[in-house]
Amino acid sequence: MNVCVLAGGVGAARFLAGLIRVTDPSSITAIVNVADDMVLHGLHISPDLDTVTYTLAGAINPETGWGLAGESWVAMQELERLGGAAWFRLGDKDLATHLYRTQRLAEGATLAEITDELARRFGLDCQLLPVTNDAVRTRVTLGPEASGDLAGREVAFQDWFVGMSHDEPVAALRFEGAELASPTPGVTEALAEADVVVIAPSNPLVSIEPVLAVPGVRAAVRERRENVVAISPIVGGRALKGPADRLMADLGIEPSVGGVARLYAPLAATLVIDPADTDHVASVEAAGMRCVVTPTVMAGPPEAAALAREVLNCG
Amino acid sequence: MNVCVLAGGVGAARFLAGLIRVTDPSSITAIVNVADDMVLHGLHISPDLDTVTYTLAGAINPETGWGLAGESWVAMQELERLGGAAWFRLGDKDLATHLYRTQRLAEGATLAEITDELARRFGLDCQLLPVTNDAVRTRVTLGPEASGDLAGREVAFQDWFVGMSHDEPVAALRFEGAELASPTPGVTEALAEADVVVIAPSNPLVSIEPVLAVPGVRAAVRERRENVVAISPIVGGRALKGPADRLMADLGIEPSVGGVARLYAPLAATLVIDPADTDHVASVEAAGMRCVVTPTVMAGPPEAAALAREVLNCG
Repeated sequence: MNVCVLAGGVGAARFLAGLIRVTDPSSITAIVNVADDMVLHGLHISPDLDTVTYTLAGAINPETGWGLAGESWVAMQELERLGGAAWFRLGDKDLATHLYRTQRLAEGATLAEITDELARRFGLDCQLLPVTNDAVRTRVTLGPEASGDLAGREVAFQDWFVGMSHDEPVAALRFEGAELASPTPGVTEALAEADVVVIAPSNPLVSIEPVLAVPGVRAAVRERRENVVAISPIVGGRALKGPADRLMADLGIEPSVGGVARLYAPLAATLVIDPADTDHVASVEAAGMRCVVTPTVMAGPPEAAALAREVLNCG
Repeated sequence: MNVCVLAGGVGAARFLAGLIRVTDPSSITAIVNVADDMVLHGLHISPDLDTVTYTLAGAINPETGWGLAGESWVAMQELERLGGAAWFRLGDKDLATHLYRTQRLAEGATLAEITDELARRFGLDCQLLPVTNDAVRTRVTLGPEASGDLAGREVAFQDWFVGMSHDEPVAALRFEGAELASPTPGVTEALAEADVVVIAPSNPLVSIEPVLAVPGVRAAVRERRENVVAISPIVGGRALKGPADRLMADLGIEPSVGGVARLYAPLAATLVIDPADTDHVASVEAAGMRCVVTPTVMAGPPEAAALAREVLNCG
C-alpha cells in the first residue's frame, strides 16, 4: 500500500513516526513544506525537512520537538559572545546538517537530492521530497494591533515564528516565489499513485497551504479527493502545538474542526478528528467531509501508530 | 610611534603578539592578507584575519597555530558522518566567527567593519585592516610534475594549501580580482603616516604579494622604502612554517635570505635576518638592502617582543 503524506514539521513528523511502524516505510512518500526555509549566517536551513528527518531517525530532541537530542551549544554560545544573531538556536550537531546542505547546494545539487542524501545518512527508509527545489518563502504581514512599529509590516516567516515567538497578530500570509515554483520531480506522481494521501496534522495555513501553493500540487491532491484523509491539527478548539489556532482566528477562520473541514473539504473526502471534538461531527459533515473520530493526540510512537492504522483504514 | 605591519597569518600573528608588548597597541595597524579567504559551506572564512585576531587575543591553539585553544569538534565530526566536506577543519567555537562574519556580510557590513567588530569582541587594542573589502583570491597553477591529473590544473588556494597539504609543485600564482580591488579606507593612509612599516615574516609569495597586488598598496609601500623593515621568513634556507621555501624554489626564486632580499629590495630599505644566516649578509647587501642580524625565530611572545624592539629601532 503506497502512502503519500503532505507534511509540515513537528505534527507531521510524529505522525510519520507512527506510520513507519504500521506499513512498509519504503512505500511512504512524505512531501514536505519548504516555505519555512531560511538563509541565516549564510546557511540554508530547512526546519520542516530536518524535523521530519531527525524524528524518523529517532534523533530528535524530545523536549523541544526540534533539533537533535544530546545536542551541544558551543558555536551558539560563542556567537552570542560575539554579538551575533543567536535568536535562531542551532546546536553544534544540527549545524553540520546546514553546513552539508549549503555546501551541496553550492556544488549544484538540488534540495531534493540533498534531502535524500541526508535521509540515507540518518538511516531513513521512507522517501522525503521537499515539495519544490525552488525557493518558496512564507511572508507574514503583521496585523494593525501588532506592537510598536511592527503593525502592518511584512516580515519573513522565521522572524515572526521564532523571532517574535509567533506572538504578534497576523493580517495576511503569502508564499513568495510559489507562482514560479515547480513541484519536485516525483511529487505529482507520488500523489497520483498513492493508495492513500494523508494531510498530516500540521498547521493548515503555514505548513500545508504553501505545499498546495506550488503549481500543480493542489490540483493533484484534489484529483485524489476520495482517497485523501486529513487529520485535524485542532483538538478541542486548540492547536496541540504552535500557533495554528490563533493564526486561523486572525485570518477569519474558525479555529475548530469545523473550520478545518471547511478549509480541506475541496481536497479531502475524510477528516479525522479527536474524541474531544465529537460534538462537532455535524459541522465537519456539513462542510461535505466524512468524519472519523479516533484519538489524534500522539503522546508517543504507539499512539501515532494507532492513529496511522486508523487513517490507512479510511483512505 | 605609529607602526604599520603588512601581515599574513601565523608568522605575522606571532610578530604582532611581540609588537603589542613593546609599543602602544593603539598605535599599531596591521594590514592583513585576504587572498586565502574562501567560502565553504556557505561561510566566509578569513584564515589570516582569524589567526591574527585569535593570536593577539591569546586564544589561538598553540599547537596548530590556527583555530582556537580548547576547541570542540562536534559539528565537524557530524559533518564527516554525513559525508560532507570535512577537509577544512572548523572547530565549534571557530564556526561562530564564520557564522558572525557571513551574517554581517549578508546584512551589508564590509569585511573591514566586521573585522573591527570581531577584534573588539576579542579584546584587541590594535587596528586590523583587511587590505581590501573586495574579493581577491589566490589561484594556484600546479606544476607539470604534479600527481595524476592535477598537472597544469589551476585550483583555489585552500584546495592546494590545506586540501593537498601544499605538497604539489606550483607553476604559477595569480591573485584573482586584484586588479579591480580597492584598498580598504585607511590602508594607504596608515602606510603614509607610519613611523615604521614592517613586512612581517609571512610567506612573501602568497601572503605579502597579494597584499601588495591591491592597486595602490605597492606604490604606498615603495614610497616609504626608507622606513620599511622586512623580516625574512626564511631562516637557514628553510621556511619556519609553511611552504614558502618550496614555493620560492618552484617559482625560480632562491629560498634564501638573498632571494628574499631580491624580492623586497624595491620596497624595503632593511632586511632583518636570523644569526643562522650571518654568512649571507653580503647577498642581502648586494641586493641593495641594509641587513640587520637578530634572532627572528619566535619561540614565544618574549622572543617576539625582542625581535619587535629590534625592528622598531631600525625602521
